[in-house]
Amino acid sequence: MRRIVDLCLPIEEHWRYGIKFSQPRSHAKGDPWQCTAYNLESHWFTHIDAPLHHDPNGDNLSAYPIQDWCIGEALILDLSGVKDNESITSDMLQAATKGYDKHFDYLILRTDRAKKVSWKKSEFWDNSPYVTDDGGEWIRDYHPKVVGYDFPQDYDIRKIRTAKNLKEEIHQPVHEHVLSEGKILQIEYLYNLWSIGSPTCTIVALPLPIPDIDGTQIRVIAIVEE
Amino acid sequence: MRRIVDLCLPIEEHWRYGIKFSQPRSHAKGDPWQCTAYNLESHWFTHIDAPLHHDPNGDNLSAYPIQDWCIGEALILDLSGVKDNESITSDMLQAATKGYDKHFDYLILRTDRAKKVSWKKSEFWDNSPYVTDDGGEWIRDYHPKVVGYDFPQDYDIRKIRTAKNLKEEIHQPVHEHVLSEGKILQIEYLYNLWSIGSPTCTIVALPLPIPDIDGTQIRVIAIVEE
Repeated sequence: MRRIVDLCLPIEEHWRYGIKFSQPRSHAKGDPWQCTAYNLESHWFTHIDAPLHHDPNGDNLSAYPIQDWCIGEALILDLSGVKDNESITSDMLQAATKGYDKHFDYLILRTDRAKKVSWKKSEFWDNSPYVTDDGGEWIRDYHPKVVGYDFPQDYDIRKIRTAKNLKEEIHQPVHEHVLSEGKILQIEYLYNLWSIGSPTCTIVALPLPIPDIDGTQIRVIAIVEE
Repeated sequence: MRRIVDLCLPIEEHWRYGIKFSQPRSHAKGDPWQCTAYNLESHWFTHIDAPLHHDPNGDNLSAYPIQDWCIGEALILDLSGVKDNESITSDMLQAATKGYDKHFDYLILRTDRAKKVSWKKSEFWDNSPYVTDDGGEWIRDYHPKVVGYDFPQDYDIRKIRTAKNLKEEIHQPVHEHVLSEGKILQIEYLYNLWSIGSPTCTIVALPLPIPDIDGTQIRVIAIVEE
């Protein structure tokens, strides 16, 4: 029996993002069909980062043909016991792989952040656990094709909404190790990982087909064989 | 051996759609990271239609949980021999199913339109083949979970760009039969179907996760076992 689990945040109005919806044509206005308009940015909601997002010399998403990575076996690292503001170290990541010696194309870091705090509140970011510098190096050295997180993985992401000078105030070592050094694709803001119910699964992840972009929305599902 | 074929148009600037790209943050401007902004409408590029698009009383996409349809077996109806402006009738659709008596969740109508005429030219629409009224009824009565096309399936779609009164000038019997009567999901502007190289395949189709919408961009791949 195959079970499909949706791992994405809904795309809807949210204080962190400037998305707005409108209806250029609608049944209410008497139009013969209905269309909805919306504006997006490449790093809003559940999305994938290409190295170019963080690294001026990094590749864009077109350098990673989806055929190479859109379907892959995933290991879910269960970090759901971490507390608010707790750091996730390389030792903790290593320990979470216990019993799984084979290499997985997808590594998914699961903290269940959105189960503890609604992703609609700034609290989701303000007191999130995060990955340490050496944790970022561990991911880089594991070298999955894709790494995914259900929480803001760099400590300073919480500061973006109030920072006055991004370049001086925000440091993102996990972005640096994963994207710039590792040239690894990174999926941010996965959701609902607790519903997978298995330490391994197949991931299917399909981004918007925008050429040469630094990142974009991606729909991600887990396929669990039971 | 598993082969993955991408079936989507690239999302890029196009005369038919009003999409524009900009960079709110960029390496060129000295920002610490790069983001790209873009505007979309729910029926631009390769996209899925929910019945609500055409039918004021129709369901939106949330009424169709992706678990029920995002992975399915597809029958590709080979209509690549049709000529410019030729109609595709129920008899032609029925004939194209020959040898495949079992029911498929996905029906894909393949004309290879974009191989004959660039989708960047209005000619792609202006002289396209189309499905007749009774062809639309045939799709409705076959009742796939999802039907997909690589060409503008209703004759009048070509007139939209010049019509003065949409309600009076545009009639879309295929939309009516498939969406309003059949309550069948419909994927428009598939691409690259000629690369599937098999009359059957597995389709994986993942839309943007926008709740309660009339349609949205969808990334579609074929998985071909060889």
